[in-house]
Amino acid sequence: MPGAFTELRRLAHEANQALPASGLVKYAFGNASAMDRGRGVFAIKPSGVPYTALRPADMVIVDLDGRLVDGRLSPSSDTRTHAVLYRSFPAIGGIVHTHSTHATAWAQAGRSIPVLGTTHADHLDRDVPCTRPMSPKAIRGDYEAETGKAIVKAFRSISPAETPMVLVFGHGPFTWGATAEKAVYHAVILEELAKMAFLTLGINPRAPRLNRTLVSRHFNRKHGKNATYGQKP
Amino acid sequence: MPGAFTELRRLAHEANQALPASGLVKYAFGNASAMDRGRGVFAIKPSGVPYTALRPADMVIVDLDGRLVDGRLSPSSDTRTHAVLYRSFPAIGGIVHTHSTHATAWAQAGRSIPVLGTTHADHLDRDVPCTRPMSPKAIRGDYEAETGKAIVKAFRSISPAETPMVLVFGHGPFTWGATAEKAVYHAVILEELAKMAFLTLGINPRAPRLNRTLVSRHFNRKHGKNATYGQKP
Amino acid sequence: MPGAFTELRRLAHEANQALPASGLVKYAFGNASAMDRGRGVFAIKPSGVPYTALRPADMVIVDLDGRLVDGRLSPSSDTRTHAVLYRSFPAIGGIVHTHSTHATAWAQAGRSIPVLGTTHADHLDRDVPCTRPMSPKAIRGDYEAETGKAIVKAFRSISPAETPMVLVFGHGPFTWGATAEKAVYHAVILEELAKMAFLTLGINPRAPRLNRTLVSRHFNRKHGKNATYGQKP
Amino acid sequence: MPGAFTELRRLAHEANQALPASGLVKYAFGNASAMDRGRGVFAIKPSGVPYTALRPADMVIVDLDGRLVDGRLSPSSDTRTHAVLYRSFPAIGGIVHTHSTHATAWAQAGRSIPVLGTTHADHLDRDVPCTRPMSPKAIRGDYEAETGKAIVKAFRSISPAETPMVLVFGHGPFTWGATAEKAVYHAVILEELAKMAFLTLGINPRAPRLNRTLVSRHFNRKHGKNATYGQKP
Repeated sequence: MPGAFTELRRLAHEANQALPASGLVKYAFGNASAMDRGRGVFAIKPSGVPYTALRPADMVIVDLDGRLVDGRLSPSSDTRTHAVLYRSFPAIGGIVHTHSTHATAWAQAGRSIPVLGTTHADHLDRDVPCTRPMSPKAIRGDYEAETGKAIVKAFRSISPAETPMVLVFGHGPFTWGATAEKAVYHAVILEELAKMAFLTLGINPRAPRLNRTLVSRHFNRKHGKNATYGQKP
Repeated sequence: MPGAFTELRRLAHEANQALPASGLVKYAFGNASAMDRGRGVFAIKPSGVPYTALRPADMVIVDLDGRLVDGRLSPSSDTRTHAVLYRSFPAIGGIVHTHSTHATAWAQAGRSIPVLGTTHADHLDRDVPCTRPMSPKAIRGDYEAETGKAIVKAFRSISPAETPMVLVFGHGPFTWGATAEKAVYHAVILEELAKMAFLTLGINPRAPRLNRTLVSRHFNRKHGKNATYGQKP
Repeated sequence: MPGAFTELRRLAHEANQALPASGLVKYAFGNASAMDRGRGVFAIKPSGVPYTALRPADMVIVDLDGRLVDGRLSPSSDTRTHAVLYRSFPAIGGIVHTHSTHATAWAQAGRSIPVLGTTHADHLDRDVPCTRPMSPKAIRGDYEAETGKAIVKAFRSISPAETPMVLVFGHGPFTWGATAEKAVYHAVILEELAKMAFLTLGINPRAPRLNRTLVSRHFNRKHGKNATYGQKP
Repeated sequence: MPGAFTELRRLAHEANQALPASGLVKYAFGNASAMDRGRGVFAIKPSGVPYTALRPADMVIVDLDGRLVDGRLSPSSDTRTHAVLYRSFPAIGGIVHTHSTHATAWAQAGRSIPVLGTTHADHLDRDVPCTRPMSPKAIRGDYEAETGKAIVKAFRSISPAETPMVLVFGHGPFTWGATAEKAVYHAVILEELAKMAFLTLGINPRAPRLNRTLVSRHFNRKHGKNATYGQKP
């Protein structure tokens, strides 16, 4: 019963619409998805449809193996990457992939984005990791799933709940969060962190990483049990 | 019978209007044209008319030798460059010339834009070529036609259907496509690739070209018989 | 009597609204406050509330020890930094904190912004100072107050009335002025000075500081008793 | 009879309004003026008035010695620079001064902008000159008039009609033209040339100046008796 996915489609559609509005994507680049853990399915942007033409009903419902569950259109070519991430990172409820300019430049440079300031530490307490290059075999194989696996491998000793973003080597950023809306937020923040880091190293190529004590102070102001930022519920 | 060119003029006008809207041109810079292969004529922007004042009826119809066929205004000063490209690249139906900031900077630097990431490989599977400098004789001669010839020479071993963009040394970009609309799309993409490449080499001056297997994987996802991207017709 | 703070709240609200409008902040980043010297209280943005949702009545009234005087919401997490600055710089009536891109990059680079031109000298007659890194003890202690103290220390031999801006090492800019509106103005100017200085050193890494005579000439055209700029009252 | 200056004020007002609209100035930065050669007076922006509040009637009429002829407000602090330029360059009818970001960065770097491409050569056939630093005596003296003299000195062997722009060392750009509208146009072009040159040298620090034959070809396509660009009258 397709009607049952109305809310999930609405969430995915809203997240996808936020991408061009925030200047992160052009034309049909990028995609956002929203997960329903109860049903084990997610809603994702259809492949190659421009954002301006996108309606909630166009969102494609797929399961965690990336198989079509409901929808008239083909899902995003990156669907299997999303599926791998949802399977491997059980706490996340939304994923965003963009080719935003500065984050993509860091991915193309093959460099993690160092934690150079408190803007970064307010959101994650370590460098934004960059995946390792994929092997020719992985590229020729189930490429989109392998992209997901390369991300998961980069997070072997990193908590995806605390570090909601990654650069895929030579490709671009993926971000996620408890919701699709949070994943969009992280995509916007990542682009800003990438721009600031580019400028910082332009001004001072030997700019040091932020002092660890200061990183923890800022990260813990906004995250965890003792967070003091924002309004109490 | 001028009325017969109404649709061709509409296509050219729409493409020209898209240039300032996409931030690629200022004032009267740049031009777009649309080809009618059946009649062997194309519609092109009149010379030096600001985009804001441009109406479909102002588009000038010229033949493949660049001779006026229909229209009240003088055609773009770059008309003979367009004519050479239409003659030499029979598969293309639209051409765009801009002085967009980052692409022009690469042209002024005299450098091809290396394929550094998948955003680039999604659109072309090699560097964006830069033409060789023109000889003083060519510059003093039929300069605009010579510009076209310099582009054609750069494509001796490159397929213009697969590589729909070029940098003219010291000048700026030309892009093309099956339609004028596609040529505009490629002009927007080229400017973004040029910006990303500038930033990438700023972050890592030794950033390597993207692995060939990955270039092919991305290019073939979107192009050719086995393309998997987008919706099936 | 809360109604008594209506005008102060209006001033603080207006300054906070100006921050996203001028492109200096995204989401809930940054904060502005307005001081009432007569009552010894200031109005500041509530913590973590997006600018789009902000109403004048949401502004929180606190005293110079950062204690809540009036308001339903928790004040900005940077409130104690504001309090220290209002206590130490008696002439100022408004403070703004942002993470604006270029100014933050200089703060992350740990570099003062050198006075390279007259745009800078029109507003302050010396480098924009950058604070010293804070000790781990200060970071673990009353961090926000310590941030204020680090700023005050950087101004031991600088007049905060003549130099209305600072970079906090690894963090970002604080600006101030006779009013909250002026503090916003200085935040916009600082971002522009930071961008110009980045570009200047990119063009000429050995660009010298502006000649002292020229610095004074421009600064005194706009400031002090003999100012000639603007309209006579 | 003040009414007699209505048209001149309108021209100056329109040019001043175009500056913030084109993104070249913030707040009250910059100024534009329009010359009436018949009467020997020009209309210029009043000092320190924000563009948003500016009405045609606010434009100040001054003579070529910079003396007030008509108007209720004090003229721009740069008025005597304009006066010197109008006296020394008899063919110009409008002047614009901005602190536009990239052009100002080149002025702060103390570097002429090299002619690196045809976008530059379409507008001027040589580097954008940068003035020599002013002596302390000149700075302490009639500073604004001395700024004009420094520009005139830089044009001893350059035609101001063919090179309608200059960088004042450590300060920023002045541009001019046959009309105030043309001066605005040149200010927009200069900012774009400055940005392109910054990027070009970032990509290739040894990028050569454009071949002289190509410079002349492009410049002469648009200027002089044999110009082929644009529509015949």
